[in-house]
Amino acid sequence: MTEPYKGVRDFYPEDMAVQRYIFDVWAETSESFGYERYDASVLEPAELYKAKGAENEEMVNEQTYTFTDRGEREVTLRPEMTPTVARMIAGRQKQLSFPVRWYSIPNLFRYERSQKGRVREHWQLNCDIFGSDDVSADIEAISLAYQVMLNFGADPSMFEVRFNDRAEMNLFYESLEIKDAETVSAITRLNDRFHKVSREEYQAELTKIVGKEELVSAIYEKISKPDDSGNNKVLSGLRELGISNIKVDRSLSRGFDYYTGTIFEIFDTSPENARSIAGGGRYDNLTSLFGGERVAAVGFAIGDVTMRGFLETHNLLTASVTAPDLVVMPLGGAEVPAALRLAQQFRAADIATEVDFSDRKIGKKLSNAGDRMVTYAIVLGEEEVKSEKLTLKNLESGEETSGTLTELVEKFSA
Amino acid sequence: MTEPYKGVRDFYPEDMAVQRYIFDVWAETSESFGYERYDASVLEPAELYKAKGAENEEMVNEQTYTFTDRGEREVTLRPEMTPTVARMIAGRQKQLSFPVRWYSIPNLFRYERSQKGRVREHWQLNCDIFGSDDVSADIEAISLAYQVMLNFGADPSMFEVRFNDRAEMNLFYESLEIKDAETVSAITRLNDRFHKVSREEYQAELTKIVGKEELVSAIYEKISKPDDSGNNKVLSGLRELGISNIKVDRSLSRGFDYYTGTIFEIFDTSPENARSIAGGGRYDNLTSLFGGERVAAVGFAIGDVTMRGFLETHNLLTASVTAPDLVVMPLGGAEVPAALRLAQQFRAADIATEVDFSDRKIGKKLSNAGDRMVTYAIVLGEEEVKSEKLTLKNLESGEETSGTLTELVEKFSA
Repeated sequence: MTEPYKGVRDFYPEDMAVQRYIFDVWAETSESFGYERYDASVLEPAELYKAKGAENEEMVNEQTYTFTDRGEREVTLRPEMTPTVARMIAGRQKQLSFPVRWYSIPNLFRYERSQKGRVREHWQLNCDIFGSDDVSADIEAISLAYQVMLNFGADPSMFEVRFNDRAEMNLFYESLEIKDAETVSAITRLNDRFHKVSREEYQAELTKIVGKEELVSAIYEKISKPDDSGNNKVLSGLRELGISNIKVDRSLSRGFDYYTGTIFEIFDTSPENARSIAGGGRYDNLTSLFGGERVAAVGFAIGDVTMRGFLETHNLLTASVTAPDLVVMPLGGAEVPAALRLAQQFRAADIATEVDFSDRKIGKKLSNAGDRMVTYAIVLGEEEVKSEKLTLKNLESGEETSGTLTELVEKFSA
Repeated sequence: MTEPYKGVRDFYPEDMAVQRYIFDVWAETSESFGYERYDASVLEPAELYKAKGAENEEMVNEQTYTFTDRGEREVTLRPEMTPTVARMIAGRQKQLSFPVRWYSIPNLFRYERSQKGRVREHWQLNCDIFGSDDVSADIEAISLAYQVMLNFGADPSMFEVRFNDRAEMNLFYESLEIKDAETVSAITRLNDRFHKVSREEYQAELTKIVGKEELVSAIYEKISKPDDSGNNKVLSGLRELGISNIKVDRSLSRGFDYYTGTIFEIFDTSPENARSIAGGGRYDNLTSLFGGERVAAVGFAIGDVTMRGFLETHNLLTASVTAPDLVVMPLGGAEVPAALRLAQQFRAADIATEVDFSDRKIGKKLSNAGDRMVTYAIVLGEEEVKSEKLTLKNLESGEETSGTLTELVEKFSA
């Protein structure tokens, strides 16, 4: 009876502190690039995900939480944020002044079989820029994701950006006379598994899709060869910004059909974390699915579970539970009212103050405050209440300072 | 297709700014009293709500979002946070050092018919102190809720705290020889509607519950008479802290059977907002329902919808969308790479910087930045790129300062 629902996490204060630290760095970095925060409900009409086509229907049917409400509406717990933000942009297309830079930190749900690192509820940073066809938008998106990593204290050697371009890949397939969207989509999905299957397996599956042997070998050569793609403007723009841990990977596919150009993912270089930490790309046609006009868009998402895994692996986690600045400790019940008043006065001076009115002994109260990393304590006995002369104890250094309330408040602000 | 699911809200940046402002004041005030933040998933096993007894079964059956997942588990979107936090406390009872002060800002779901101010998803501040039987815990809970109001800039004349005590009411019923829990519960539920029904209606319904006329008139007299309850220690403690907008209201009931002592609600004194802004009380037996030992508890919740209504009514809303400190505006496409590099350097100096690489004219870029309350702009032409001499324009005062990057960064930190 004390366990949470299967596949979701309880955030006790020590875990919540980590979560808040991650969210704070995400928010601050996004805002440092001029992104504005938005949000929406976890509940979305199920149709929102059906609009996106076949590949997503499979996801809606097998991997989402979709149910029928008491008013016979089909409702889904959102599995990703992109359809939501595209819906919101389409809904205000006339009022918004493009380009628009938006970010959000939504919780998302997928019904997955439990695996290491796989949970049914997770959080993501989602950043998107709408209304720019310019390569600068692609460059900005990737450099923002890169900067998030750096702002956690990561060194570029700890991670790498893998890069591909759907438009370039489409041109390549066209050069082989492969123009059918379904065939391209099937190749793309197979490429996504390129690093996970053997050469033979890859080629066998590719043969099933494209038939001719010469096509199989041309595609295999393209996908397997590291390609520097020297004339891609996004890549050269990123290198001009000093971002050098970027690698062209022609097998990179991303899960969704809606990408139209640049796609990228960020990976931990440590083999401990095999799943990508971040991923995104350009998707220029999504808003038109919701009745809006076409709006160019580039965006990406970073997941909390893989982010935390990365930070733990590289010893970059420094978050701790918030503690008050000061704990006032009444010696006995008689001093409690005075302690409550005193705390009220310290708080009015912007000093976070707790009153420990428990019946623990003073020694226990002091050690409890010390364990929680509280810096100051005031023990309040009959004498202190009468004289209004207080002793402020620094729990780190052991140093003691005596004075009136006003004198001690001044000490805090000094 | 661009509308959200019925009964939930989209938070476009301007609404999100209000929501974040409210959450920030909630979080800061809670932490100023020494409360630690926790969270849990919106998904809970449906049994969690069934454990609480008959009155809640009605709520689970008729007002929650409960559905069966693909693994045949019954799952509920949490309608309130108290069962979750009681479950979490019961789960770590042995490790925790009581008293424990926790807060959370969960989103909650109820399937309600749409009414003014009623939504199907809302957020609450939930604050609880566990492990203290002392009246000081009751005093702290109410003074924390009171301080939240003050920290939004509210004057005590704008709201009032209504107070009652379940234990005192039970003693009163016992003095009338009413000891049966179900009868007391029925009276309590009727009292909850005391201010909404006529005297005749109230007395008629009460007669159905207790029968004898002398009981009806004794209870009516108790409920209708303002009672100063001079010897209640929680009340006197609150008055010692200077909290005087508090009123004993013997009809006050709160919705849940789990309360065992103090109960309170905060109301707007303006008739525009009739629903309570905050409510809570002491509930000493809840953890034992989840297999834990009894843990004394006092807590309260404040809702975002009624909070926002209060702030709007009293003109206390000051939130605005975050904007970058600076927008760098390349004159043409040739200056974009330099603009991206420059922005990167300003950000490294902790100056939030956006690059407006859109094809808008410079006048439009400047007015757009001004509309968004951005303070500074730098226009970057061929000349500026070559000379590395930049002009920083203050969009509020019109003042201009020229200098190198380093000189301008210094100006920001001055």
